[in-house]
Amino acid sequence: MPTYKAPIEDVKFLLNDVFHMERYGNMPGFADTSPDLVAAILEEAAKFAEEVLQPLNRSGDQEGCTRHPDGSVTTPQGFRQAYRQMIEGGWVGISVPTEYGGQGLPATMTMIVNEMLASANMAFAMYPGLTQGAIAALLHHATEEQKKTYLPKMTTGEWTGTMNLTEPHCGTDLGLLRAKAVPQADGSYRITGTKIFISAGEHDMSENIIHLVLARIEGAPEGVKGISLFIVPKFMVEADGSAGARNSLLCGSIEHKMGIHGNSTCVMNYDGATGWLLGEANKGLHAMFTMMNEARLAVGMQGLSQSEVAYQNAANYARERLQGRSISGVKAPDKPADPIIVHPDIRRVLMSIKSFNEAARALILWTALKGDVQHRSEDGNARQAAEDHVGLMTPVIKGVITDKGFDNTVMAQQVFGGHGYIGEHGMEQFVRDARIAMIYEGANGIQALDLVGRKLGRDGGRAITAFFKEVSEFVKQNSEEAMKPYVAPLGEALAQLQQATMWFMQNAPKKPDNAGAGSSDYMHLFGLVALAYMWAQMAKTAQEKLKQGANGAEERMKAKLVTGRFFMERVLPETAAHLKRITTGADTMMALPAEAF
Amino acid sequence: MPTYKAPIEDVKFLLNDVFHMERYGNMPGFADTSPDLVAAILEEAAKFAEEVLQPLNRSGDQEGCTRHPDGSVTTPQGFRQAYRQMIEGGWVGISVPTEYGGQGLPATMTMIVNEMLASANMAFAMYPGLTQGAIAALLHHATEEQKKTYLPKMTTGEWTGTMNLTEPHCGTDLGLLRAKAVPQADGSYRITGTKIFISAGEHDMSENIIHLVLARIEGAPEGVKGISLFIVPKFMVEADGSAGARNSLLCGSIEHKMGIHGNSTCVMNYDGATGWLLGEANKGLHAMFTMMNEARLAVGMQGLSQSEVAYQNAANYARERLQGRSISGVKAPDKPADPIIVHPDIRRVLMSIKSFNEAARALILWTALKGDVQHRSEDGNARQAAEDHVGLMTPVIKGVITDKGFDNTVMAQQVFGGHGYIGEHGMEQFVRDARIAMIYEGANGIQALDLVGRKLGRDGGRAITAFFKEVSEFVKQNSEEAMKPYVAPLGEALAQLQQATMWFMQNAPKKPDNAGAGSSDYMHLFGLVALAYMWAQMAKTAQEKLKQGANGAEERMKAKLVTGRFFMERVLPETAAHLKRITTGADTMMALPAEAF
Repeated sequence: MPTYKAPIEDVKFLLNDVFHMERYGNMPGFADTSPDLVAAILEEAAKFAEEVLQPLNRSGDQEGCTRHPDGSVTTPQGFRQAYRQMIEGGWVGISVPTEYGGQGLPATMTMIVNEMLASANMAFAMYPGLTQGAIAALLHHATEEQKKTYLPKMTTGEWTGTMNLTEPHCGTDLGLLRAKAVPQADGSYRITGTKIFISAGEHDMSENIIHLVLARIEGAPEGVKGISLFIVPKFMVEADGSAGARNSLLCGSIEHKMGIHGNSTCVMNYDGATGWLLGEANKGLHAMFTMMNEARLAVGMQGLSQSEVAYQNAANYARERLQGRSISGVKAPDKPADPIIVHPDIRRVLMSIKSFNEAARALILWTALKGDVQHRSEDGNARQAAEDHVGLMTPVIKGVITDKGFDNTVMAQQVFGGHGYIGEHGMEQFVRDARIAMIYEGANGIQALDLVGRKLGRDGGRAITAFFKEVSEFVKQNSEEAMKPYVAPLGEALAQLQQATMWFMQNAPKKPDNAGAGSSDYMHLFGLVALAYMWAQMAKTAQEKLKQGANGAEERMKAKLVTGRFFMERVLPETAAHLKRITTGADTMMALPAEAF
Repeated sequence: MPTYKAPIEDVKFLLNDVFHMERYGNMPGFADTSPDLVAAILEEAAKFAEEVLQPLNRSGDQEGCTRHPDGSVTTPQGFRQAYRQMIEGGWVGISVPTEYGGQGLPATMTMIVNEMLASANMAFAMYPGLTQGAIAALLHHATEEQKKTYLPKMTTGEWTGTMNLTEPHCGTDLGLLRAKAVPQADGSYRITGTKIFISAGEHDMSENIIHLVLARIEGAPEGVKGISLFIVPKFMVEADGSAGARNSLLCGSIEHKMGIHGNSTCVMNYDGATGWLLGEANKGLHAMFTMMNEARLAVGMQGLSQSEVAYQNAANYARERLQGRSISGVKAPDKPADPIIVHPDIRRVLMSIKSFNEAARALILWTALKGDVQHRSEDGNARQAAEDHVGLMTPVIKGVITDKGFDNTVMAQQVFGGHGYIGEHGMEQFVRDARIAMIYEGANGIQALDLVGRKLGRDGGRAITAFFKEVSEFVKQNSEEAMKPYVAPLGEALAQLQQATMWFMQNAPKKPDNAGAGSSDYMHLFGLVALAYMWAQMAKTAQEKLKQGANGAEERMKAKLVTGRFFMERVLPETAAHLKRITTGADTMMALPAEAF
């Protein structure tokens, strides 16, 4: 059976030593977030993830969700009880403003906790995760009355949330959307249409489900400019705030998916359901993207979560499984064979994943902290710079960490040989669960286009310029001998990324396909540079801590230095191939007629 | 629902135009294999695959196999009937010598037919596939009496075969094997032990199942030098050749796997079962490897098979799915959106897979033809050279084509967005089915070690030297302008492979971990060079055909040239990163203590 241990020490290293969370102390929510409080929250969250959620992961996968003839859905055994503990722990609302019943802590803390929940049980963690996304949309776009109506119960988790975008004929291209909203005399709307792939669309864990639904108000313009966002609760909310009459919406079926079986992915039928406009009419996409952008970071984190738990299990197995002898001489003469961790090719897999995970976690936390600055700082320049950073990094984190996170689950599974292919060890579930993260909240090809087509050029390239400047300054300022193994390859990779960026500037305007043809490679090239930068910073911190006397963390700091070095030697060299591909352009790629495929 | 169309034209192009099958006409089996006969066989096999097997693929996955309390196993609905058609078509034995009831055709033909069967239904195709492996072992190692007893009914497919190696505590490291064989007065043995992951171990499609089982004769030496191979039939064979009394062996359970649900993967319990020695005592591994090596090529082909069928479905979907508009201007103004095949990032995926599949098929067929030369040629030198080639290419084909074939199914699935994650379109099944090919018949890490640790140095490097010579001569002899886009990158990649080989020669003897640390990268670097060489040859052929007037194949030949170019520009650049990784050696990789993971 698979196991999971939350990476508490690693998170503390990042928050306290690398990113110096104490420097953010002047922002709301941070002042109260002392290292001790952080540690206490991490311990509690870890316990919940390891002891309550993880044991339900495999059984939840095997049992899946069941839809009944009346449209109701039962979640796997144990999910209801675990969700009750989730509510009791107050985990849904730790970063929601206190006025709506939350704890007002940094959103970074939610991200950290959610990684643990998702590692332990991704299908389960999606229920509160979707709720948090819906809360974000309401916080930004709802009227005060709407906030008071919905937020308190969503913050506790008593009510959950969903996002309804996709229809059978339209996913990426929301301009094709058909769901209809007809205005009523009382200010409400009648919503009619079919939505598919609705995660947590119907289930038995909460008293009410607040659906956020994209639809087109009768007579609205065609395309994306005529789309509005609506609040459509499963049960109408009574004047006293309780759930009342059933709304005209129903789960039509649940999808048979490759993974995340514990989450109910629904076809939702809205049949003249009562809804209320959220934000402005015809600006629904904008409102939805508030939710979507936070969700994309969370999905990137899911990629890490599966990579992490798969890695941990592979490492355990590699230490225990006896098979073959080391080619450099017998290592366990008292045993019938050596543990497979002595074999270089097994090490290659473990080091590849480990060096990815630790940098990915750093990149996510760094960006989550910037997200807190964006929303909480009183300094307008800092807010602007943080917003630039988050906008730039969101597609990178979503696209790269889910792509590579999935690859890592596959590599981790390989460590088990045939035992990885059967259900027992849980490895094949990590692969199946991780796979969705590359698809939802905008397939990774779309992330790459968002990065290259939108984020690079925005505001005259302000965000990317700032990033280049920060990294190159770090490289310059850390040229001492000990840092060379880290900053030399980082500098080289940065130069390649800059070349690629320049190539787009020169070749995409006259032929836009040149941008599309290189977008995925560019996103991955960018991701590698960002991760390498994380490693350079972590190496710097580790060296400083070792110099100061690492207080019992010597071995962990030494391991950081080795792992970062591995990343530079073995993972980063991929950048050259990305650059080469980008600069070949679109001609060959686009040459064949459609019927030649 | 997924569809499949056998790549008949592509196979004919390879056999007739690229590899000139007619040149092999002097070998047994080839003389009768005229282009017309080949075409007829391909058409028939295609029909069987497309019309009978493919429609059972998804239902077979959903239903899976069922073990009953008495140990019997029922295959999914339709499998029995389809298998009867397989027998009637004579597909199992097309390459088996005529004296045992086969058609004596080249083994290459079996490989070609099997690709089609596996694309249509991999789980089904494994039943006859395992039988063919067992037939190979019997042909090489059985006594004449044993051959007469088993081969005729296995050749028709009335009886099927299995291979039993793995035990719960030993997979790769067969030296740890515990299954026991006790000699009996009549020359038979009593076999006792538990074998796991036995594909097609028990089912309802054939009258008898001939298990080939590795076990240790009482008193035999420890380790791999004390392992023997036994023939252990499910039903004892009577004097008249029919199946008689039940042997003492039973399917203890069937595994719950990630994929290939239509194949029954069994735990097999041998409880004093009667078996007969196959080949020499204590040389079982050698005999098993006859089977294993052919099986490894077949598994490489499975990687291609899933990549091919996944590609076809993705291409069809990309032509039909309307979503978004081309960034270079609207392409389908009469439709609400353009088909997604207009988007460069979708093209990138399709071209990547297409350019891989066509070269992989070439590499497999080229090597299959060499296999025929190895076994059928009267020229001793030719046989030797062919054996060298097959030995060298087997780990490359198995390791690279299954790794990349799996990646390709994942990429093809991505084209479908959310629709790729649900069962309906069949894409997620291709991913789950393809995954096993990276694991069984020697996990791909083992293939890489076989290549680097055994195949490179064997006979003073004769095989690799011959390969280098052949490729570099091709590069030299085809330096004309039209071939430059193909031979220039090929030459560069070859130089990198030679550098990597040299690096091992210089750095592995003094530190064997340096070989292990670079083995997987080396295998993939080798694979890229081999595939690029296939493209260079195919481009040459296509250019010649276009010059001669391609007789209606103009468009296909032009597409070959574009696709080959794409491979050179976008797939091959990976070689540099492999070389860089290899030459960093093992130090960083091996530096951490096991407990640091």
